Amino acid sequence: MKRLIAILAVLAVAVSDPAWSSADPLPGWRDSPVRQRILAFVTTVTTPGSPGYVTPAERIAVFDDDGTLWPEKPRAQGMFALERLRSIASDHPEWQNRLPFKAALELGSKYLEEASDEAVFQLVAAAYAGRTQEAFRQAVREFFATARHPRFERPYTHLVYVPMRELINYLKASGFRVFISTTGSIDLVRVLAEELYAVPADDVIGSSVVSTLREEDGRLVLRRLGSVHALNDGPRKPLAIDLQVGRRPILAVGNVKSGGDIDMLRYSQQPDVPNLQVLIRHDDFEREYAYDEPDGASVKAANANGWLLVSMRYDWLQLFSAE
Amino acid sequence: MKRLIAILAVLAVAVSDPAWSSADPLPGWRDSPVRQRILAFVTTVTTPGSPGYVTPAERIAVFDDDGTLWPEKPRAQGMFALERLRSIASDHPEWQNRLPFKAALELGSKYLEEASDEAVFQLVAAAYAGRTQEAFRQAVREFFATARHPRFERPYTHLVYVPMRELINYLKASGFRVFISTTGSIDLVRVLAEELYAVPADDVIGSSVVSTLREEDGRLVLRRLGSVHALNDGPRKPLAIDLQVGRRPILAVGNVKSGGDIDMLRYSQQPDVPNLQVLIRHDDFEREYAYDEPDGASVKAANANGWLLVSMRYDWLQLFSAE
Repeated sequence: MKRLIAILAVLAVAVSDPAWSSADPLPGWRDSPVRQRILAFVTTVTTPGSPGYVTPAERIAVFDDDGTLWPEKPRAQGMFALERLRSIASDHPEWQNRLPFKAALELGSKYLEEASDEAVFQLVAAAYAGRTQEAFRQAVREFFATARHPRFERPYTHLVYVPMRELINYLKASGFRVFISTTGSIDLVRVLAEELYAVPADDVIGSSVVSTLREEDGRLVLRRLGSVHALNDGPRKPLAIDLQVGRRPILAVGNVKSGGDIDMLRYSQQPDVPNLQVLIRHDDFEREYAYDEPDGASVKAANANGWLLVSMRYDWLQLFSAE
Repeated sequence: MKRLIAILAVLAVAVSDPAWSSADPLPGWRDSPVRQRILAFVTTVTTPGSPGYVTPAERIAVFDDDGTLWPEKPRAQGMFALERLRSIASDHPEWQNRLPFKAALELGSKYLEEASDEAVFQLVAAAYAGRTQEAFRQAVREFFATARHPRFERPYTHLVYVPMRELINYLKASGFRVFISTTGSIDLVRVLAEELYAVPADDVIGSSVVSTLREEDGRLVLRRLGSVHALNDGPRKPLAIDLQVGRRPILAVGNVKSGGDIDMLRYSQQPDVPNLQVLIRHDDFEREYAYDEPDGASVKAANANGWLLVSMRYDWLQLFSAE
C-alpha cells in the first residue's frame, strides 16, 4: 500500500510539473526580456542538479498587495473603512477636525487615491474598533460582495492583475510558497487572499491593530481595538517576514509608489542563493494609472541593485480578466 | 492532461486517507477512552456530510512544545544557551550577581529543570546577542547535533514523545495544518521543527528577541539583540496565534507545568465548531518525570472545560523511540 501511495504521489507531481506541460504559464505577459528572466529564474531554482537549485522549503516568494496585485487608486481598504466610518461619524464629532478622518469623510475616494499608507490604515483601524475577529471578517466579506471600483465599475475582486495571478499560480506549481506582505490590514487581506489567490490566512503578513483577549460569557474572545499595533511598511516588512515566515525570500515583488517595498526587495537579495526582485511600474494611463514617486527612490534602487522593472503598459498583454 | 492530474490527485488523497487504510494511526497510544476520543474527533471533522465536518482550511491544530512534544526537564533551549553563556561568561562579570545568569552558570541543568519559562528565555536571548539569523541557526544545528540529555543520555532530538509524533502525523494525513506554539525561542524551534516534525518554519510561533535591520557591506542584514521582544506564554499565545495563523484552532494540545497553556486551550473552544483540547500530565516517574502544578490550575481548567487529560504513564504505551 505504501508503495502504491508513493507511485501515485510521484506520478501526480510529475504530471503537474510545468516542465512536463507545454502550456505557457504566463500568457498575459509579453514575450519580453522581463518574462524571459522570470522563466529562467524559476527554471534555475527548480532544476535538480543545477548549480542554482533551491529546495522547495527555501522557495519563498513575497508579494506586496496594493498596487502590486491590484490597483491602489483608491485603496480598496480605505473604501471599506470609509463606508463604516460614515455610518458611525455622527458618534464621532471629533473627526470633523482631525486628519485623516476629516479628509476621508469630506473627499472620499479622491482622498484615498493619494493618502499615505499610514493614513489609510488609521482609517481601517478606526473601523475595527470593538469588533471581534469574526465580526470584522464578516463585514469585510459583505463589503467586497457588493462594492465596485469607482472608475472601472467592477467589483474590486475582479481587478486582480491577470499577469500577477498567473505568476502566483506559476510559482505555486513550481513548488514555491507564496506569501503576501501588505501595508494594509492583515485581517482584511486574509479574507481576500484565500478567495483571490488561494493563499491561506497564515501566509498573509500585514498591518495589525491592538487586540485584547477578554472573557465574555465564559469564553475567551479576541476584540480588535481602534489603535494601530504595527504598520507593515518599509523596514518593518523584512522584520515581519523574518518573524512570520522565518526564512529569507528568494523572490520579492513590489511596486512603485512610496518606496515602501525597497527594504523588502533588498532583504531578498542574498549571496550564494539565486534571487530575483521584481518592481512594477504604473505607466499605463489608459488601462490603469500612470504615476511615479516624487523622488524616484524605488526605480533608483532597482537600477542600483539589478532588479527587474516591469512596465504595466509594455510587459502586460492583459491587465484585468474579461469580467 | 488536467483530468489525469485530477484523477491522480484524488487517488493519491484517497489512498493516503487513513479511512482507507487498516493501519493503526496511533499505535503508541493505549486503546483507552482518551485515544478513542481523539480518533472520534478526527473522524467527525473529516467526514464529508457529517454535521461536524470542518473544511481543511479550518483544520488548525496547535501544539505546545516543551513538555508536550518532548521533555522539559531540563529545557533543551536552556542547555543550548548555557553552553554559549559559559563560553562568553568571562566577558560578562555582571552575570556573577544577576539572575537568572548567576543561577544558570552555577547550577546548570539542575537550575534549568525548575527555572521559569521567562528565565530560560532570558538566557536564550542573551545567547543570541549580536548574531545574524543565519549564525544563530547554525549554532543551534551544531549544538543539537552532539548534545545529549543528562539523564537519558541520548540526543535531545531522539526524545520526541512517540505518541505525539504519531498524533501530528495522523492529523497531517487527515488534512490538518499543524502549528507549534512554543514559549521557547521561535528561531530555535524553527530549526528543529522541520527536522523533527516536518513542520515548516512559518508554522512555528514562539518567543522572540528584538531584531534590527542593518546595512552591512551594502546588504541588509537582520541582527538579533539580547533583549526580549515577546514572551509567547499565557494570554500571549492566543494573541500570537491570531496574528500569525489568522484562524482559531479547533485542536489545542498543551501540558501541565505552569498553567501557560490554559489560555491557548480555552481559545480553541468555540461554539458551533467541533473542537478538542488535550492536556498532558507528567505522571510517569519511571519513564520520564512526575510533576504537577502547585496550584493545579491546568487540571482544574481541564475538568471545568471538559478537556481530555492524558496520563503519560497510562495512555502512552511507548514514550521514546527505540533509538
